[in-house]
Amino acid sequence: MPGLFITLEGTEGGGKSTQLPLLADRLQSLGHRLCVLREPGGTAVGEEIRHTLKHSRGGHGMTPETELLLMNASRAQLVREVIRPALARGEIVVCDRFYDSTTAYQGYGRQLALDQVAQVIRFAVGETRPDLTLLLRVPVSTSEARRRLRQADPASPANAAAELPDRFEAADRSFFERVERGFDAIAAAEPDRVVVVDASRGIGEVHESLWQAVQRLLRRRELRAE
Amino acid sequence: MPGLFITLEGTEGGGKSTQLPLLADRLQSLGHRLCVLREPGGTAVGEEIRHTLKHSRGGHGMTPETELLLMNASRAQLVREVIRPALARGEIVVCDRFYDSTTAYQGYGRQLALDQVAQVIRFAVGETRPDLTLLLRVPVSTSEARRRLRQADPASPANAAAELPDRFEAADRSFFERVERGFDAIAAAEPDRVVVVDASRGIGEVHESLWQAVQRLLRRRELRAE
Repeated sequence: MPGLFITLEGTEGGGKSTQLPLLADRLQSLGHRLCVLREPGGTAVGEEIRHTLKHSRGGHGMTPETELLLMNASRAQLVREVIRPALARGEIVVCDRFYDSTTAYQGYGRQLALDQVAQVIRFAVGETRPDLTLLLRVPVSTSEARRRLRQADPASPANAAAELPDRFEAADRSFFERVERGFDAIAAAEPDRVVVVDASRGIGEVHESLWQAVQRLLRRRELRAE
Repeated sequence: MPGLFITLEGTEGGGKSTQLPLLADRLQSLGHRLCVLREPGGTAVGEEIRHTLKHSRGGHGMTPETELLLMNASRAQLVREVIRPALARGEIVVCDRFYDSTTAYQGYGRQLALDQVAQVIRFAVGETRPDLTLLLRVPVSTSEARRRLRQADPASPANAAAELPDRFEAADRSFFERVERGFDAIAAAEPDRVVVVDASRGIGEVHESLWQAVQRLLRRRELRAE
């Protein structure tokens, strides 16, 4: 595939929704063609699935297994309908959350069997895997404060931009600690793909760290092409 | 689990929608408590997923992988919200199609990797597997005639009762031949669970064959309980 696939990951409060447009602007200003996506959703089928995921938060009692399969149904469609064609056209695909969130939230957070979670993800994405994953890391206290803020003001732009169903917000503290550990385990297992960025710093500093990682990836691709 | 789990399977034209109520009536007349279900659907979440599966037939281009994951999302919810509680109450659960249809239609028919299909199904159902599967078998020519009839009259009761999205109807002949081979392979692999019934005979004869298989299952359970 001539394109590049970059994902942004991390718990709440890491500033993904602030950093993603900054990164996208900078890439576009250098003449790169971009495809910016979010999960779940991004296709007609995927947006219907997103609605089901969000709509049923009110106590229909969606099981963790159902949640995981719906997330991956949306993902399977996104990969084949949008991501692969964009990569084939040579675009840089930037996705706000991808399968690492599933591993962290449903696998570690909801404690589903990790090998089974990996199997379902593999079925959904096939060979389509990120070239680079930027993991925005903040202390648990920061993401907790952020979640409280969102719960207090459900109409806040931050809440509207939230990628995850709001019912995650209601889960207990140990859930989010497990999610955090999940992201750390993913980063430790795949250091070549996952770059951990300290997102507790200022917006500009965090952006520069992300940009350095992206530049390294772009340079690697140029070397490969030569 | 004190209950029993029975599934009806097979290609179109096997008369499942005729046979299921006959079987249910006879079981109820003997005092058994029943839980009659169909797939996909059967829960609030599952009916939304059913809508997405049926709604998107018109050319949104749902990928086979998305289809399989949606089917199993509905199934994961049905198993945990309805089937397991019913079995725990000692009921006889009778389900019109279950995971064998996924293996036959998506695995064999749409030619997805069978080991991956099995992994996704295993994730969706866990340890909840049918005690008895009644496979209603008709010659390919019969199921083909049935499909043509449904296409000609979309308002027919048979069509309304159809368990599968109508877009299956438009698929080519080799698809349905593969599905047929899939059901045969499932029956050959699990002869203790799957009872193949020649459904090309009269309604009463077919019913008697189904009933004999169900009686054997009931007797086995009584022996187990003694």
